[in-house]
Amino acid sequence: MSALPLAHAPGQWRVAATRRIEYELRKADDVFDPQNDALLAGGRSRGSRRFVVIDDQVHRLHGARVAAYFQSRGVQARILALPGGEEHKDEAAWRRVLQALDAFPIHRRDEPVIAIGGGVLTDVVGFAASCYRRGLPHIKVPTTLMGYVDAAVGIKTGINFNGHKNRLGSFEPPRRVLLDRRLLATLAPRHLRNGVCEIVKLAVICDAGLFDLLERSGADALASAFQAGASAAILDRAVGGMLRELAPNLYEDDLARAVDFGHTFSYGLEMRHAATLLHGEAVLLDVLASTVIAERRGLLAEADGERVLALVARLGLQPEPRLLEPAHMWQALLDRIEHRNGHQHVPLPTAIGACAFADDVVFPEIEAAVAALTERMTGHEPIAQC
Amino acid sequence: MSALPLAHAPGQWRVAATRRIEYELRKADDVFDPQNDALLAGGRSRGSRRFVVIDDQVHRLHGARVAAYFQSRGVQARILALPGGEEHKDEAAWRRVLQALDAFPIHRRDEPVIAIGGGVLTDVVGFAASCYRRGLPHIKVPTTLMGYVDAAVGIKTGINFNGHKNRLGSFEPPRRVLLDRRLLATLAPRHLRNGVCEIVKLAVICDAGLFDLLERSGADALASAFQAGASAAILDRAVGGMLRELAPNLYEDDLARAVDFGHTFSYGLEMRHAATLLHGEAVLLDVLASTVIAERRGLLAEADGERVLALVARLGLQPEPRLLEPAHMWQALLDRIEHRNGHQHVPLPTAIGACAFADDVVFPEIEAAVAALTERMTGHEPIAQC
Repeated sequence: MSALPLAHAPGQWRVAATRRIEYELRKADDVFDPQNDALLAGGRSRGSRRFVVIDDQVHRLHGARVAAYFQSRGVQARILALPGGEEHKDEAAWRRVLQALDAFPIHRRDEPVIAIGGGVLTDVVGFAASCYRRGLPHIKVPTTLMGYVDAAVGIKTGINFNGHKNRLGSFEPPRRVLLDRRLLATLAPRHLRNGVCEIVKLAVICDAGLFDLLERSGADALASAFQAGASAAILDRAVGGMLRELAPNLYEDDLARAVDFGHTFSYGLEMRHAATLLHGEAVLLDVLASTVIAERRGLLAEADGERVLALVARLGLQPEPRLLEPAHMWQALLDRIEHRNGHQHVPLPTAIGACAFADDVVFPEIEAAVAALTERMTGHEPIAQC
Repeated sequence: MSALPLAHAPGQWRVAATRRIEYELRKADDVFDPQNDALLAGGRSRGSRRFVVIDDQVHRLHGARVAAYFQSRGVQARILALPGGEEHKDEAAWRRVLQALDAFPIHRRDEPVIAIGGGVLTDVVGFAASCYRRGLPHIKVPTTLMGYVDAAVGIKTGINFNGHKNRLGSFEPPRRVLLDRRLLATLAPRHLRNGVCEIVKLAVICDAGLFDLLERSGADALASAFQAGASAAILDRAVGGMLRELAPNLYEDDLARAVDFGHTFSYGLEMRHAATLLHGEAVLLDVLASTVIAERRGLLAEADGERVLALVARLGLQPEPRLLEPAHMWQALLDRIEHRNGHQHVPLPTAIGACAFADDVVFPEIEAAVAALTERMTGHEPIAQC
């Protein structure tokens, strides 16, 4: 806190404080091993309580070990299993967490809520934790690749509302994030590819070295469910790169953010195809459209654009450009303008690993970019959409 | 932001930042006068938009002036009228604000939400603003005495949930708070007394000078609806005293808070009698019970306890001690223990204007204090309650 938290002039008071934010991400092999302290560190241990929310699929696979972990530690745990998936990122899930929490009294400061699951689950639980009693500490254990390299890394929480993605939420630093790569071993290939889309995004816009690594070893890492070969190197670089972008701008004081690459047009797309399109898949479509916009503006060399498309193909990501509808992309951009306080701030690549921001994107160039992309990827002109 | 936002060791990343919190309270006479800039300061002006939520009674009295204000300034305003009162401090009101907000696009940073109303309204709107797009700035214009001296002064927002008071909420600093004493002129006497209860609380626990002032001039100020005599002096001292307590501990890092005096047993009481008891009335009952507990512990001289009761009588506050039910007070205390992270931290007066914290309050002394208080105030023993 500041030394002078309160200044007073006639008819006027000024309150000032500084708040310290600190959290830690830590690789934790076999986080449910009773010998591993990581899950209970940062709070009271024996004799205490933990409210744990776990993805229902993870619960089927690891629920018994999770329960045994707390039992062996003498910690009373309430374990709530919730479905993951974008369609469950809603007020109902948030309220369910809050009601279960309200029925299981825990201390406000030293019995952190634990969220074990993918990005949707950690976002929902983080938001619930931030609202309950004006904020309980929470710990995130990502169990999907999307969570591991993206959702669990920063301090943003959220739920969808009124048909809009992440319309409600908070900036709520976790107390810690535990990264256990083994949990990725059982992920379905599509969910692995979903997370890879965010790694590709980061590589294109911020990290040429990561891009090279993906070209060389991404496909093998993916085939091993990120258990073998260069997997650890790719993950470390993705997490570190993401943090390097986020850490100096945790609260988005600067609304021109490179990590928003792929997150301009994807918002509308993702909500429109909530049942069929995963977050990373929507982001990848936006990455590709933005890449072509950058090319057509002469910002990005065509050879670099080709490298992006070739990497996507080599990784077997199979985006469907026919889902890109220019009119909806324009609507999404208009909403992003409110979000970015009156500016487009559309991140565009200027080379592999380099970013600029455009504030003058117009509808016809979105149309033209989508047409060009569709033709390049499918060999056909796009079908007219209503 | 810190110079070193990110530190990296093998398998470990540490994110650190400092966040600057700053806000201002400003006396603003006749805040709806088109010549007064206060309502639009701290955001974009002509050509911009404002989302305004106003208490429906204030809207009946001042709605036309509020609309004219924005019109004369060339600012497009969406004005939403909502009922005040504890029974409306719920998820439904919060959602209503959010849905109306979502239908009226505003910039995320420089078109602050404006909340005009009592403590319930500013708490609900503050919480909605803190959730929408992970936080829009907001401005508070308290129109009740409770709002003026208490709810609007700090950074806490909230709604009731699951039968528990303020169970959901956030710490969300307003951008500014505008204090227009004239708005209190039309308050019903009971609502004036409601706010006076919080001033009494503050005086007893923190400020002997304010207590003296209330003894001398409180009744006259109240009779003038805080428009004449020592009214301004009382209000300034109450706001300043509250801020002095809040400012060094905005996020309640220290859970032993003098301003929680009267806010231990009152929680359960208020929810139990939501239809009949105002917040300040519940707080006053808690203040009196806590005062007697302090007396019976030998912490507070009986003469000081008598002064508290005499002031309450002189101000015509008429608390009803029969509403104090020891079993429910005990339940409320148990919940406060979770809230205060395992500690009772019950604030008790040790003199007029001085505070200590008890961590060992037991059920029998609550029973005995309630019995003694009831007898002292009514001349009768308390009626047995089921």
